[in-house]
Amino acid sequence: MLKPGARIGILGGGQLGRMLALDAARLGFDCVIFTPEDDSPAGRVAAACEIAPYEDLEAVARFAASVDVVTYEFENVPVETAQAAGRHAPLRPGVKALEVCQDRVTEKSFVNEAGIETTPWQAVSSAKDAIAAAQALGVPAILKTRRLGYDGKGQQVVRRAGDAASAFEALGSVPCILEAFAPFTREVSVVAARSVDGAVAAFPLAENHHEGGILRVSTAPAPGADGLAGEALRIASAILSGLEYVGVLAVELFVLEDGRLWVNEIAPRVHNTGHWTMDACTVSQFEQHIRAIAGWPLGDPAPHSAARMDNLIGADVERWQALASEPGVCLHLYGKGEAREGRKMGHVNRLSPLS
Amino acid sequence: MLKPGARIGILGGGQLGRMLALDAARLGFDCVIFTPEDDSPAGRVAAACEIAPYEDLEAVARFAASVDVVTYEFENVPVETAQAAGRHAPLRPGVKALEVCQDRVTEKSFVNEAGIETTPWQAVSSAKDAIAAAQALGVPAILKTRRLGYDGKGQQVVRRAGDAASAFEALGSVPCILEAFAPFTREVSVVAARSVDGAVAAFPLAENHHEGGILRVSTAPAPGADGLAGEALRIASAILSGLEYVGVLAVELFVLEDGRLWVNEIAPRVHNTGHWTMDACTVSQFEQHIRAIAGWPLGDPAPHSAARMDNLIGADVERWQALASEPGVCLHLYGKGEAREGRKMGHVNRLSPLS
Repeated sequence: MLKPGARIGILGGGQLGRMLALDAARLGFDCVIFTPEDDSPAGRVAAACEIAPYEDLEAVARFAASVDVVTYEFENVPVETAQAAGRHAPLRPGVKALEVCQDRVTEKSFVNEAGIETTPWQAVSSAKDAIAAAQALGVPAILKTRRLGYDGKGQQVVRRAGDAASAFEALGSVPCILEAFAPFTREVSVVAARSVDGAVAAFPLAENHHEGGILRVSTAPAPGADGLAGEALRIASAILSGLEYVGVLAVELFVLEDGRLWVNEIAPRVHNTGHWTMDACTVSQFEQHIRAIAGWPLGDPAPHSAARMDNLIGADVERWQALASEPGVCLHLYGKGEAREGRKMGHVNRLSPLS
Repeated sequence: MLKPGARIGILGGGQLGRMLALDAARLGFDCVIFTPEDDSPAGRVAAACEIAPYEDLEAVARFAASVDVVTYEFENVPVETAQAAGRHAPLRPGVKALEVCQDRVTEKSFVNEAGIETTPWQAVSSAKDAIAAAQALGVPAILKTRRLGYDGKGQQVVRRAGDAASAFEALGSVPCILEAFAPFTREVSVVAARSVDGAVAAFPLAENHHEGGILRVSTAPAPGADGLAGEALRIASAILSGLEYVGVLAVELFVLEDGRLWVNEIAPRVHNTGHWTMDACTVSQFEQHIRAIAGWPLGDPAPHSAARMDNLIGADVERWQALASEPGVCLHLYGKGEAREGRKMGHVNRLSPLS
């Protein structure tokens, strides 16, 4: 159990690292950020910052040796980087979560082997595979790169089986996965944590709305979803223990018409659909992650309020002045310079009494 | 109106500066801390830190020239330091608040001239003065140094008029003030903000309990104190406008049996009795201060929950493990190394539904 004053190392300097560092500070910890970026959102709120490429394993070792525990804020940290860090400090969550979640085929296989449903899928290694998979699964379907996709990047919709080959080529002819369209009625997510001693705590489900592959709005607790909470917790618990996980993880779920839940995606980290917890719970997802990796008991995930979270994407952030004037709005800005299209610049939470 | 990304300079590196910096970061600002301390609580969560004595006016100028606005987190910043900073960036609140509040006689004169009551008092410059004042005001009374007192330091209770001379000598024969004991039934405080354009917003009153001159507990909204809110707001508003103040300020008030309010003390800064706002309001006192000095509109001070705040003083902080295990506790630790007696190490907020 790390004492206040201990040092927490975070691989990655983006907004998730920033919000982790802010909550870690509130618990009395010092944070050290490892990032290739000169002037990162997280680095500007941390006690120290190691600026180097992830491939510089000497810098990684120096960083890890200077802290009491290492965590990561994004799932595409190279496995070798995480392994190098893990030789000098406990790495939480561990390498297994990265290995499983960095590849969509590995991830879906892991989920299905745990007895949890996903949309039907097939691995695709060639244009010929792609056409065969589209014929087998039916169209429309979505072709995704197995690795390094996020926020709708690295995806192509396949509307006719014959188009699968060109979609594969458009994605760079890299290893892919074809996923059948899930006949979902709504998208929800469960953000859950597992402590060092194996205890699990889940925040209430959030209902999520995406546009162009990017999350726009989360509403939590998801209205009328109390009946899904038990099954969502069972799924999250199976994934957490299967990954021997320590920390916070998010599972995006499709809700089918008959109420079944299919896993869409696992994010082995704090997650955009958990940002509502920052203002609506006594313990946010960021504090929960810090508690878990520090070996502390998990906090109570019960919310004191309901919340609607709206992302500020790209030029949305130019509305900051109006948002700052709106009573009851909790404004969160990430300290990013340029408001590029599709870039997550901040979010707002609006609270309301729990119904 | 400062844009997100602007730089906020804070004179002082203690826990108040730390909590200001954390909330400023949430709004997208970068903070620069000026402190003589090598390894300060605030410096470890800020984008940059200028480490120099407050008397090093060249360092102060360099610091102020590097930011877009300067504020302070404690009222004993030397006036010359604040003035030097104010030549290079807007200083908010201004020098006047420091000049008035650094001296108990000046402060009480200012309050009384604004038509607001305080306990009866007299300035004391000599042992002879002290005895005369004790005879005039009656005993028991409290002799306090005019300058540099805090948390009960620099005070002597005078129980017999004849003891006033030795009390004066025990305080170092420096300029003092003798204050009559106020016949109060409870102590409350109002934490209020004034914006650049003169708007005022006050959080609900907190009821406060001190031990040995140090705040132990605040309860807010103060139970059964709705009838006092109007008068407290009138007092706070008069003080804020009289000081041409921009930012958050606290007024400690004695509640007399007949419901009258006497000003005990003004703190020209965020205040320990406002820490409950961090978890019970959508906008905390720290965010409110940052909004004010950045030229933003003030946030809505309405709480979503009631709160009880307990300070962790000295060895209290060793209970962190039990506190971290208690559901519903919001734990705040200040990142201070040594838990010296009387040192404020952290606080906890416990929320409950608004009654």
